[in-house]
Amino acid sequence: MVDYEKKELLYRGKAKEMFATNVSDVVWVHYMDQVTALNGKKKVQMTDKGTTNNQISSLIFSDLTANGIPNDFIKQIDANNQLVKKVQIIPLEVVIRNFASSSFERKFAVDHLLKFEQPVKEFFYKSDKLDDPFINDSQIKALNIATQQQLDQMRDLALKINQRLRTIFAAMQIELIDFKVEFGLDQTGEIILADEISPDSCRLVDQKTKESLDKDVFRKGLGELVPVYKTVLQRLQKVEGHN
Amino acid sequence: MVDYEKKELLYRGKAKEMFATNVSDVVWVHYMDQVTALNGKKKVQMTDKGTTNNQISSLIFSDLTANGIPNDFIKQIDANNQLVKKVQIIPLEVVIRNFASSSFERKFAVDHLLKFEQPVKEFFYKSDKLDDPFINDSQIKALNIATQQQLDQMRDLALKINQRLRTIFAAMQIELIDFKVEFGLDQTGEIILADEISPDSCRLVDQKTKESLDKDVFRKGLGELVPVYKTVLQRLQKVEGHN
Ligand SMILES: Nc1ncnc2c1ncn2[C@@H]1O[C@H](COP(=O)(O)OP(=O)(O)O)[C@@H](O)[C@H]1O
Ligand SMILES: Nc1ncnc2c1ncn2[C@@H]1O[C@H](COP(=O)(O)OP(=O)(O)O)[C@@H](O)[C@H]1O
Ligand SMILES: [Mg+2]
Ligand SMILES: [Mg+2]
Repeated sequence: MVDYEKKELLYRGKAKEMFATNVSDVVWVHYMDQVTALNGKKKVQMTDKGTTNNQISSLIFSDLTANGIPNDFIKQIDANNQLVKKVQIIPLEVVIRNFASSSFERKFAVDHLLKFEQPVKEFFYKSDKLDDPFINDSQIKALNIATQQQLDQMRDLALKINQRLRTIFAAMQIELIDFKVEFGLDQTGEIILADEISPDSCRLVDQKTKESLDKDVFRKGLGELVPVYKTVLQRLQKVEGHN
Repeated sequence: MVDYEKKELLYRGKAKEMFATNVSDVVWVHYMDQVTALNGKKKVQMTDKGTTNNQISSLIFSDLTANGIPNDFIKQIDANNQLVKKVQIIPLEVVIRNFASSSFERKFAVDHLLKFEQPVKEFFYKSDKLDDPFINDSQIKALNIATQQQLDQMRDLALKINQRLRTIFAAMQIELIDFKVEFGLDQTGEIILADEISPDSCRLVDQKTKESLDKDVFRKGLGELVPVYKTVLQRLQKVEGHN
């Protein structure tokens, strides 16, 4: 088995640092003890935040692998670090909504947590400069961001991920309101799930208490974030048989 | 032939008044001498504005009928009035863009009048209360505004309309930058083009002078609106053999 070495910093994002390794198509991901909101305008350091999300995302990606969803996860290295396949990220945030919340609720003046008969699918153009604008298929093609086939594939994969995530979270007594994923092209040009799935990128509600178990705790100042994320991790570890 | 009588006011919009007639599925449309912008927040009265748009829209809808585009136009009655088939309006503004302008240009920071390889297609939810938000297929279906089949039909018709309008305007030495149309369901449930097509709903640029020949003259305070609309009408009358 290869011993992976951490090399130069490739990119420092809002939640993670990406490092090159001695293997050209493998990236070393460091989950930082940092949380941001409002596209980075609000930023706070928090002990244990990185390790909690690293563990949550590692468990979820492993589960997705076992359930046939192609993704970039290779393995967790230690508390804050994991190895992933390097992909060429398609600069789109793919959002799936099972219930109305946040921007959807405000934009269309519908009831909070209105249940959709079919999941709602949205793309946002991942561009900090442009403030991640909502974008449709036709605009994506006009701007050469992705092809129609790639869009259809991403939507299809996102719906499969939604199915699996809802099952996992249901077993944790958590309702999956909505979530965001990113996809990339691997070395062979195949579209695979990349980045992370964690309470930073999902909207989660406790089925009994109706409390938020996600970044809304931070966005809305509802209390301490890390203990909430740790609750999610503990329930996930139980469900995934890691405890 | 039926003699149509104007009955009670059904709706007063930002540019037109819709009246019932003695025939249940026929609406009397009065084009007002009024122009608005910013979703009605800016409103000005202008002599001859209504008659000019009534004539322009009548000529265009007649042309579209001759070119196989199903629509609501029956006939022009006089300077400011026309008769149309009553439809159940689908509350979507269907926008087709041949070149980048306005909201597209700002949202994606592209060059003014960037030419698209394929026309860009967008839907906006027609709701003054919500400020006509940009909406995608999935959201439209979740809100039960239209079915996928209806969306595909509207896009298809809008592209055919775009083809024909580009031909008409090219003969008038005018470039069609973008336009907005509305569709409705007729008595048989068929989707047909409704409302109007005029410099209020199209973005038009003179091929030689590069001047705006549309409502941007008013929106941006570039000069007098009615003389510009009259220029468009005169060129259109020549092209349509009505002069
Ligand atoms: N497998 C991968 N290969 C290459 N880049 C990736 C991969 N997974 C995620 N990324 C990118 O790395 C960055 C992760 O750091 P993050 O803090 O989430 O950044 P951001 O602030 O841009 O969201 C993101 O830009 C993400 O698109
Ligand atoms: N054939 C038709 N049957 C019924 N309603 C129509 C028809 N054509 C257009 N309409 C509707 O009538 C109104 C026309 O007036 P207008 O001043 O354009 O209104 P608005 O300010 O809502 O855009 C619009 O609401 C439009 O959707
Ligand atoms: Mg990120
Ligand atoms: Mg109108």
